[in-house]
Amino acid sequence: MLTLRRLPIDTFRENVAFLNRGCTGYHVEDFLGLGRVEVRGDGRSLLAVLNLVDDPAILGPEEIGLSQSAFRHLGLPEGSPVHLVPPTPPVSFDRVRDKVLGATLSPEDLRRIIADITDHRYSKIEIAAFLIACASFMTTEEVLGLTRAMVAAGARLDWDGVRPIVDKHCIGGIPGNRTSMIVVPIVAAHGLPIPKTSSRAITSPAGTADTMEVLANVDVPVERMQELVREARGCLVWGGHVRLSPADDILISVERPLAIDTREQLVASILSKKVAAGSSHLVVDIPVGPTAKVRSMAEAARLRKLFEHVGDQLGLSLDVAVTDGSQPVGRGIGPVLEARDVMAVLRGDPAAPADLRDRALLLAGRILEFDPAVRGGAGIAIARQILESGRALAAMERIMAMQGPPPAAATLGTLVAEIPSPAEGVVTAIDCFRIARIARLAGAPNDKGAGIDLLRKVGDPVRRGEPLYRIHARTGADFAFAQSFALEETGVSVAMP
Amino acid sequence: MLTLRRLPIDTFRENVAFLNRGCTGYHVEDFLGLGRVEVRGDGRSLLAVLNLVDDPAILGPEEIGLSQSAFRHLGLPEGSPVHLVPPTPPVSFDRVRDKVLGATLSPEDLRRIIADITDHRYSKIEIAAFLIACASFMTTEEVLGLTRAMVAAGARLDWDGVRPIVDKHCIGGIPGNRTSMIVVPIVAAHGLPIPKTSSRAITSPAGTADTMEVLANVDVPVERMQELVREARGCLVWGGHVRLSPADDILISVERPLAIDTREQLVASILSKKVAAGSSHLVVDIPVGPTAKVRSMAEAARLRKLFEHVGDQLGLSLDVAVTDGSQPVGRGIGPVLEARDVMAVLRGDPAAPADLRDRALLLAGRILEFDPAVRGGAGIAIARQILESGRALAAMERIMAMQGPPPAAATLGTLVAEIPSPAEGVVTAIDCFRIARIARLAGAPNDKGAGIDLLRKVGDPVRRGEPLYRIHARTGADFAFAQSFALEETGVSVAMP
Repeated sequence: MLTLRRLPIDTFRENVAFLNRGCTGYHVEDFLGLGRVEVRGDGRSLLAVLNLVDDPAILGPEEIGLSQSAFRHLGLPEGSPVHLVPPTPPVSFDRVRDKVLGATLSPEDLRRIIADITDHRYSKIEIAAFLIACASFMTTEEVLGLTRAMVAAGARLDWDGVRPIVDKHCIGGIPGNRTSMIVVPIVAAHGLPIPKTSSRAITSPAGTADTMEVLANVDVPVERMQELVREARGCLVWGGHVRLSPADDILISVERPLAIDTREQLVASILSKKVAAGSSHLVVDIPVGPTAKVRSMAEAARLRKLFEHVGDQLGLSLDVAVTDGSQPVGRGIGPVLEARDVMAVLRGDPAAPADLRDRALLLAGRILEFDPAVRGGAGIAIARQILESGRALAAMERIMAMQGPPPAAATLGTLVAEIPSPAEGVVTAIDCFRIARIARLAGAPNDKGAGIDLLRKVGDPVRRGEPLYRIHARTGADFAFAQSFALEETGVSVAMP
Repeated sequence: MLTLRRLPIDTFRENVAFLNRGCTGYHVEDFLGLGRVEVRGDGRSLLAVLNLVDDPAILGPEEIGLSQSAFRHLGLPEGSPVHLVPPTPPVSFDRVRDKVLGATLSPEDLRRIIADITDHRYSKIEIAAFLIACASFMTTEEVLGLTRAMVAAGARLDWDGVRPIVDKHCIGGIPGNRTSMIVVPIVAAHGLPIPKTSSRAITSPAGTADTMEVLANVDVPVERMQELVREARGCLVWGGHVRLSPADDILISVERPLAIDTREQLVASILSKKVAAGSSHLVVDIPVGPTAKVRSMAEAARLRKLFEHVGDQLGLSLDVAVTDGSQPVGRGIGPVLEARDVMAVLRGDPAAPADLRDRALLLAGRILEFDPAVRGGAGIAIARQILESGRALAAMERIMAMQGPPPAAATLGTLVAEIPSPAEGVVTAIDCFRIARIARLAGAPNDKGAGIDLLRKVGDPVRRGEPLYRIHARTGADFAFAQSFALEETGVSVAMP
């Protein structure tokens, strides 16, 4: 028997058990070859990766320490007596092994695998094995089975039978693409319920949640979110409180560091979240461009068909919009700058970026056509009318007021540098990756006022030495980093026409 | 800048960096989505998985802690100033991603991947991705490229141009199969140099290193091992000091917990070690049986051909022996019991297990035929003559004397239980997995005197209630576990003929 302790170490998604190397009562070596132990106590058990501690001040020989998430998953109080047994890997992993060797997985196989993953019974390397096996080859039926399994493994929002519940989703990758913050107020003003949850940026300079947080509180519990939608028809909140498709979050935590991103996993990931959120109708935005996630129209078509097929099978009314992803959208990149562009569009400011407005109108129009009362093809005109009449701005102000004030005031970074064009000509391309990288180096999204303000877009003429964009930052180190990186290679191509 | 500390935490093959959650000078969140950080200082750098610490008594906000192996890999002294940058995953991983999607890897791709793995630049999930991609499909050329890359990434033993340097390898899985301890003295007595390195058991009840350690010291540095072979023509040492094909050890540390074991990876793993050890001639033993690693003759033939093809390309003279793997070899299972069987064969004891002796003679005979002076087909007769004349025993005693006495005396476990046959009949099968499991539960290999002594083998008649085998153990808990597990299902099938 060992005494359970919670160690103040956060190992994130990986359950880790710590033993003193001189642990009493066990041959520690017995567990080393397998890399894991099974911890048991009071009818509960946990599989954990094994680490050893060589300092009794951290962990004594009669103790077992669990990392914070492992401690939570085991669910026993500190001081509980526990014992160790050789790990029994989850039975569902046998089918992962078969899949690696070419088998296809049945819906029931996928249900078991996803249930074990959700239950924290897979180590990270087992999750990686599952993801890689699926990345090499997946049938459409497997994508559907995986999506259903992910929905089944989590909670599902209930909208009391209200239909349609509409939503939009962009597959991402385009800086400044904050259409949701314009689409939601337009659709809500029209009266269709649109409960929009968004993520914070992880590798990009801003997520919709980061940008919305410049204007309002986004940290809203699920029950309050449902109230908001009942009252204001829409919301723009951070998705972190809505524990929908928890398997998806776990899979992504392994997918992201591997940067392995397949069409099949993308579709299962997005659609599982949307079905779990109770959406009945969905518009998916797929931007295509040389530096976007999807690089060709052929690739976009394959992705569209997979979305449509799986969506149909799940009973989701789904419309895919393939859009221009050849350059960032709007002018600002970074939360404060993007919020500025969004509000300019909503206010009808003549200087507001036309590309952001037109794109938001296109997507809102497509969503409005989910309303049976809207005549086919009339959606975009209704969307434009709602925007131009100021009703979208009023809806946005209502949503902001209901969500509450932002946790902290965010203002534009006051260290400003203009990056000059190294040549004369016309802007022919803007590299989404490079621009995002520079905005992040400047401090976005943690520093909400940091980022890039584009002064030239594709098609604009520029003279040598004229500014292409401004970098905003707050701290000297970030400012210097971003500037030197931008001067090395601006990310904006200029050529003589 | 952070101050470097070595934390007393052993995370094994995974480099882990620990930061205080309130770490000064960095936005910790920037690194969380990517799961890793790159630690830089004094021209050195290290990629490490990121964990957070919430107790300043373990790690302060101006410090960075590295796990023991990570600290060693970075190679800077404690107290060094280091800084963090976003991780740049190894460039070679791009090709792993391509392989996942169906590409084949060139020898140069494999060289770079294996060099980065050896250099501890891959996280465990990246290693898992590589292994799974290779497990789904690998061309013979890829197997060859992988083997060469693994050889190139490590040291290579130099035998001053002496040829042949012979070796044997069994792919494993059969309890009691300790032929090496008979083959080595026979071959050494004949005069062919046979530098045998062996592993300790990880999932089995005994490795050759564990069993040899009952008789002699096996913890021998490389230089001393080379001296032994020069003087005694052979040795039987633990391979842990010989850092050959270090990539293989790293790959195995991820393969084993996943229990994914392909023909291709097996061949690359074994042949890379043998080529790095400077072997010129090799006999590979492939036991086939219903509970062995290889279950059918067809499977054995495929494995044999792959060994032969890759061996030929590497300039290794390779002979494959497909042997009976239908039951354990000899009577004893566990280090002390196996050492007893081996010595009984070497001493010519009439009660020595005939199957162990015959198998060792077969393999030794095949190796002796690598000697150009031995007439084709004459090897086994020479091997028998060396064994029966006592020259093999003398060679073994010389090797034992030169390696030195064992670190501790090992005696047979004195808690003994006989497991009775539940039926009358003839033994028709013995389950290698179950017998190994029971021997491990009894305490083998950590308790060298624990294990199983088989009293009946396949073909032997047995009456109901007569003993099938004896369990030996030293501690009451192990004894009780092994006994109850054996009584539940003995692992020995008895049927009326």
